[in-house]
Amino acid sequence: MLSLRSSSRLCSPKQLSRAVQVSVLSSPAGLRLTSHVQQPRHFSTTPATQLRDFFPEKETAYIRKTPPSWPHHEWTEQEMLSVVPEHREPKTMGDWLAWKLVRIARWGTDIATGIKPEQQSDKRKPTTAVAAQKPLTEAQWLVRFIFLESIAGVPGMVAGMLRHLGSLRRLKRDNGWIETLLEESYNERMHLLTFMKMCEPGWFMKSFIIAAQGVFFNAVFVSYLVSPKITHRFVGYLEEEAVHTYTRCIGELEAGQLPKWSHPDFQIPELAITYFRMPEGKRTMKDLIYQIRADEAVHRGVNHTLSNLDQKEDPNPFVSDYKIGEGAHRHRPNPALKPTGYERDEVIG
Amino acid sequence: MLSLRSSSRLCSPKQLSRAVQVSVLSSPAGLRLTSHVQQPRHFSTTPATQLRDFFPEKETAYIRKTPPSWPHHEWTEQEMLSVVPEHREPKTMGDWLAWKLVRIARWGTDIATGIKPEQQSDKRKPTTAVAAQKPLTEAQWLVRFIFLESIAGVPGMVAGMLRHLGSLRRLKRDNGWIETLLEESYNERMHLLTFMKMCEPGWFMKSFIIAAQGVFFNAVFVSYLVSPKITHRFVGYLEEEAVHTYTRCIGELEAGQLPKWSHPDFQIPELAITYFRMPEGKRTMKDLIYQIRADEAVHRGVNHTLSNLDQKEDPNPFVSDYKIGEGAHRHRPNPALKPTGYERDEVIG
Ligand SMILES: [Fe+2]
Ligand SMILES: [Fe+2]
Ligand SMILES: [Fe+2]
Ligand SMILES: [Fe+2]
Repeated sequence: MLSLRSSSRLCSPKQLSRAVQVSVLSSPAGLRLTSHVQQPRHFSTTPATQLRDFFPEKETAYIRKTPPSWPHHEWTEQEMLSVVPEHREPKTMGDWLAWKLVRIARWGTDIATGIKPEQQSDKRKPTTAVAAQKPLTEAQWLVRFIFLESIAGVPGMVAGMLRHLGSLRRLKRDNGWIETLLEESYNERMHLLTFMKMCEPGWFMKSFIIAAQGVFFNAVFVSYLVSPKITHRFVGYLEEEAVHTYTRCIGELEAGQLPKWSHPDFQIPELAITYFRMPEGKRTMKDLIYQIRADEAVHRGVNHTLSNLDQKEDPNPFVSDYKIGEGAHRHRPNPALKPTGYERDEVIG
Repeated sequence: MLSLRSSSRLCSPKQLSRAVQVSVLSSPAGLRLTSHVQQPRHFSTTPATQLRDFFPEKETAYIRKTPPSWPHHEWTEQEMLSVVPEHREPKTMGDWLAWKLVRIARWGTDIATGIKPEQQSDKRKPTTAVAAQKPLTEAQWLVRFIFLESIAGVPGMVAGMLRHLGSLRRLKRDNGWIETLLEESYNERMHLLTFMKMCEPGWFMKSFIIAAQGVFFNAVFVSYLVSPKITHRFVGYLEEEAVHTYTRCIGELEAGQLPKWSHPDFQIPELAITYFRMPEGKRTMKDLIYQIRADEAVHRGVNHTLSNLDQKEDPNPFVSDYKIGEGAHRHRPNPALKPTGYERDEVIG
């Protein structure tokens, strides 16, 4: 097993006495990985030292912890374990276009991740095959996660905004779509902020993210005006990639191939524990990735379904969970467990 | 008092037996006013006939009533009565610019409303003086409300989206602003949909609203990128206009100058009763306008305050009410009763 101390080339002894800081100098896309491993403590669950925070200027005087805009769906163990990477076969020309665009996005993400040939999974089943000769490193995973999440937060917000403007402009009600779309984008932003707490991207990656958003925001904006149906299908395919990515990561975590993250002293950010309401004893990196993967499975099912609906007339079959009350959602469509989405006649009418 | 029946030129006897439909043919901006007065019923609070709905193709098979995205703040009588039209004196060049832009918007709204010289209030105190020689008609008020609300729903959504994208792009947290901004835009959309239930705008007004949004959306988008501070000030001034408009309307309602709306049989839309959670016995048009005015007072106080803050570093001092729990908001800043907004040192630090 990798020695945590031996790889800590940048740590001063003082730092070492508090937390082991691991910096991967030759990391992909300019990421400076700083995972934080606390010294074992035996009689307290309160961390003796805080995990390093990368928003120090904000945490000082004015930061306020606000309750989440949308409380997180609390996943059962069973639900989180049941999520599987799957693929909806393209049926229409629009599906095919969306699928090809996501192939390009995946190619770009693989480059950003600095993935080597032996780290590739089977390209013929890009969103379902998870086996590869060699695992990714923790630093590679973080680059991938951050890039994926910074992109994933865009479409829900754009779609929600455009439907909001459409409702104002056409003087018609929206039929409940807006909130689910905004909630999706908020959820993605929480994923991003969680990973941001684990590392600090370098200037190269930061510029890359800004440029990618510039392109992606405009593309989604225009595309949603032209065809919301194709755009939701595109997001559905993007979320197939997300489920695939997190499933492979879980596999490598469980195979012991990501030792920094499965080290018993590795602590996930407080922000994530609060947002996901993770119970004590279920706060490892693996637990976190299981939570996030279930969220992605929701986005996948929701967007594939929305793409199947009449964009103007049909109501949103998925309404914010916490509004309905505990347990009620079990009887409603569960997009997390419907990888290819519901067909229209399953949820409308 | 105006006879409701005598002005119902378009009603067939069959319609008359159900509801008295008043159509104002020579109304401003192409509005076709259709207020609905139910026959008195004595032993039931459930309407025997539904108010006419202008989204019939949606109400049929698929419409679903979803809980509000953001539950409405429940106003106390005291709070609703305490709202006053007021004006924040422009202090900076930015304030001055925002104020002048709102003067132009007011001028456009007056034209859309088809306001006559004798219906004008004192132009030297545009957002505080409510006295005028002649009242507006119900149809004029509705044009004004609908135009105002279709515009008012834009800035919160644009600002919320741009802050969301900024958080994703800069990999920084948002400090709680996004939700308040989105909530504002949702609240405005509910105002709009409420008024839409009372009338059906003609093609002229519909085109006018689409054109206005085209211009306004782009203007706010660019302006928020250039200076969020000035944009929030602009919205603050726009909301001064909203409070002014609704205050004057309340005055005319209370002076008995809007007989159609103070007729005991006039029913406000079910949508509004549900959204505002209006108690029985408090469901007149006057009660409704009091509710809406209090909302506008919140937007006014919130936006004037946000404009006073450091846009990047300061947290949002106003967090969604219902998250905090009953009564808790009484101890927090109450933007409804702070017409000119809080200065930065009152809420930060
Ligand atoms: Fe995500
Ligand atoms: Fe996602
Ligand atoms: Fe409003
Ligand atoms: Fe407003």
